[in-house]
Amino acid sequence: MAKTTSGFDFVIHKRRPGTDLVRWIYDEVRSAILEGRLKRGMRLPSTRELARRYGIARGTIVTAFRHLYAEGYLEAKVGAGTYVRTFLPEEFLHAKRTARASTEARKFTPALSKYAQRLAPAPAGRGQPAHAFRAAEPALDVFPASLWAQIASRRLRAATRKLLADVDPRGYRPLREAVTNYLGTARGVRCTNEQVIIVAGIQQALEITARLLIDPGAPVWLEDPCFFGVAAMFKALAAKIIPVPLDKNGLDVAEGQRRCDRARLVYLAPAHQFPLGMTMSLERRLALLNWARRTGALIFEDDYDSEYRYSGRPIPALQGLDQSDSVIFAGSFSKVLFPSLRLGYLVAPTRLIDKFAAARYTMDRHSAVIDQAILCDFITEGHFGRHIRRMRELYANRLEVLRESVRRTLGELLTIPETEAGVNTVGWLRKGLSAEAVARAAAERNVEVIPIGQFVLQKRRPEGLLLGFGAVDDRELLRGVKDLAEIIENCGKSRHRALPMSSR
Amino acid sequence: MAKTTSGFDFVIHKRRPGTDLVRWIYDEVRSAILEGRLKRGMRLPSTRELARRYGIARGTIVTAFRHLYAEGYLEAKVGAGTYVRTFLPEEFLHAKRTARASTEARKFTPALSKYAQRLAPAPAGRGQPAHAFRAAEPALDVFPASLWAQIASRRLRAATRKLLADVDPRGYRPLREAVTNYLGTARGVRCTNEQVIIVAGIQQALEITARLLIDPGAPVWLEDPCFFGVAAMFKALAAKIIPVPLDKNGLDVAEGQRRCDRARLVYLAPAHQFPLGMTMSLERRLALLNWARRTGALIFEDDYDSEYRYSGRPIPALQGLDQSDSVIFAGSFSKVLFPSLRLGYLVAPTRLIDKFAAARYTMDRHSAVIDQAILCDFITEGHFGRHIRRMRELYANRLEVLRESVRRTLGELLTIPETEAGVNTVGWLRKGLSAEAVARAAAERNVEVIPIGQFVLQKRRPEGLLLGFGAVDDRELLRGVKDLAEIIENCGKSRHRALPMSSR
Repeated sequence: MAKTTSGFDFVIHKRRPGTDLVRWIYDEVRSAILEGRLKRGMRLPSTRELARRYGIARGTIVTAFRHLYAEGYLEAKVGAGTYVRTFLPEEFLHAKRTARASTEARKFTPALSKYAQRLAPAPAGRGQPAHAFRAAEPALDVFPASLWAQIASRRLRAATRKLLADVDPRGYRPLREAVTNYLGTARGVRCTNEQVIIVAGIQQALEITARLLIDPGAPVWLEDPCFFGVAAMFKALAAKIIPVPLDKNGLDVAEGQRRCDRARLVYLAPAHQFPLGMTMSLERRLALLNWARRTGALIFEDDYDSEYRYSGRPIPALQGLDQSDSVIFAGSFSKVLFPSLRLGYLVAPTRLIDKFAAARYTMDRHSAVIDQAILCDFITEGHFGRHIRRMRELYANRLEVLRESVRRTLGELLTIPETEAGVNTVGWLRKGLSAEAVARAAAERNVEVIPIGQFVLQKRRPEGLLLGFGAVDDRELLRGVKDLAEIIENCGKSRHRALPMSSR
Repeated sequence: MAKTTSGFDFVIHKRRPGTDLVRWIYDEVRSAILEGRLKRGMRLPSTRELARRYGIARGTIVTAFRHLYAEGYLEAKVGAGTYVRTFLPEEFLHAKRTARASTEARKFTPALSKYAQRLAPAPAGRGQPAHAFRAAEPALDVFPASLWAQIASRRLRAATRKLLADVDPRGYRPLREAVTNYLGTARGVRCTNEQVIIVAGIQQALEITARLLIDPGAPVWLEDPCFFGVAAMFKALAAKIIPVPLDKNGLDVAEGQRRCDRARLVYLAPAHQFPLGMTMSLERRLALLNWARRTGALIFEDDYDSEYRYSGRPIPALQGLDQSDSVIFAGSFSKVLFPSLRLGYLVAPTRLIDKFAAARYTMDRHSAVIDQAILCDFITEGHFGRHIRRMRELYANRLEVLRESVRRTLGELLTIPETEAGVNTVGWLRKGLSAEAVARAAAERNVEVIPIGQFVLQKRRPEGLLLGFGAVDDRELLRGVKDLAEIIENCGKSRHRALPMSSR
């Protein structure tokens, strides 16, 4: 499995005074091979080429190479040049050399910033493929990848200078216009193109917002429970997190005011709360906006998962009700199209547009422009709207399959409440069952469920599980429900067995 | 120029109690049109569809629409449905409504974080096309866009689930391997795949580094002069900036130690300093590494612009000499391929890999995966190496054209020093000429030059201009030199005329 020529120029370190030329070339090539910088099977530049490049006599290089042939590092192929050998001599002599970082260096931790110390570790990646009941992932197997490929190919073939050069940190203008239209029509967002900033997703939108508004110690209302990524991000910034409870009407605004009337920022997902799934009522929305206008607080509206609504009327964005330029609205294309796309949008209050642009520019300039152009075509040619409608139908069916089989198989052990929207739902466990124990046992059988307790900031909730139904097909959903039923029954039994012991 | 149907569901606000149904539908549609959420020429869903969706009688919607037809908001096209009219009645009655942000709201600035207050505004975008002597932009007109399109199309047509789903925040693994190979071979970087993190560019690499290491007040050495984006980023983080002067051997390490021996981080571009262009000597490199090992400081090696070296031997990275896991190495594909790609790499010290991954994850997850896969193919199939070689030849020629015509046309008015690498060079003005005055006059004639003084942190330099030669062809280079000669001569004259006055 020889690699082909690297195609790159090979660099060598300066000769230390006192080393002879042959030795220097020999050492450089040998150590590059041993350190893996020159890979096995890789073709080296010709001696003539190397001589020219480093300004030394070709004979010197030929002599050094002769040693390296003799010792088994290189081999010559007639008419094809010089290659790094596939089997190397050192392998017979020593254990394989690993990366040069000494264990000594590893022990020594450099002085990290307070931010770095507070930072939560990145989670381990998720397995392939998606098992029941993976949450927060779309049905990737039905994504129209070949249509996307066609659009991409057309865009790229006609790529203009403009598409290859840098753009406004707020993003590719035609995409911003398409997003403005989409949000106006489908989400009731009221904004101009100027307010729309293309970002890498809701997480980046929130990161920029938080950094523009939050100094260490600044109070922030978070929905309790909420997505851990959100809480972790505010913790890393040393915000003072004020958990605000939820009821069936969404965020309890009055309770938030009691806990901290002077919060700088509120984070919430009014269309479809994560993980509980309720929609915020109009009365609560108006109360929140009034409070924000009075106190000068800003509201971050996470519109995640709002695209799929199965019953009831589509709920326009909170942003559309705002009269005081207080709402930062954010959504993502990653969940509607595919997560690796890393494109989303933020609608900035007009008075903050320049600050958002400045922050994005200093952090990472802007999102990749060709991707933005492809997405723009996908939207303006009507594919996006069609894709949403198709997915809505698919997800509605999957939800129905899940509900039906849970009802039939799990009965009162697991209750799925009315689910109006989204690709995740909560399932409440019968009293006495532990969501943590169920999730642990489920993981061993490739059933992915997350205990609701893991999202809780403060207020204890009944034991429940987050169940995703978008990413997996009917068969896998049914398999998941069947296995989950056995798991829950076993957990129930072991609890019953355990009771006499724990009551002692 | 009628727009086609939006394809999105149109959302309407909840009916306020007491409004009748017809009035409600009428108001919602009318205000959506006036606010631009329903665009002119856009097709509306059918009355049947709307009735179904909002659970109201179709007759109600028909009545509301009849008012809207009568008043000129909507028009019916036989057999084709209902459209928003291209000419709207309000235009004859009122001035056009702008976005809803009231001027009152604009005046009120919310409480911004200290970071936001320190943030420099994003610069205005650059014009199209590139004029002489645009800096820091590659020759976009010769980028092999159709080859890129082919690779992209092949990748996308075969896009697997894996390519659409989220990945490790450090990036797409095969690309990280390709980058490891490239950096090992071409740049003398010693690292494993584990250390390589794909980022959105050097700016993001630096942003992450700074946030992991810098608390407000932490001392950082910056090369003086250096790129303004770098200084602005550290200023926004309230780092204590220690300007360290440069001489022909690069950063004056001894002077840095005198100024602040306990710096937490050093930022430098040893391969090709920006904007002065010198390469750091081996002695200085070793001195810097020794100092870092002794004090525990970390070194950020910006490898920007190292790919193009026209004379002398390729200089391996500082990172390759480091024995104490102290160097963060970063480079970008944006300048070698195209800026809007937004892909670069960072090689983390082994002991900081997890922190880098955690920071990237919380900031924006990871870079778009399909772009990473396309780039990976472009590298492993040898196109990248070939592209660099082709560009090196092109840029060497352009540099020669620039040098020759400056020598011939500008003589002693502007001196270009020996330029070994990169796509920018400095031009020193004859004593007495003002770089600012020249740059201002040049801008009026579409000649882009940046006074070196704009990059200075502290130490005054002779008057000089940054001249880019990569992005513009020979004809434009010659045009630029000719115009620049006239501009400089005029500036010289006006200075001479001004002298008697200013000496009074």
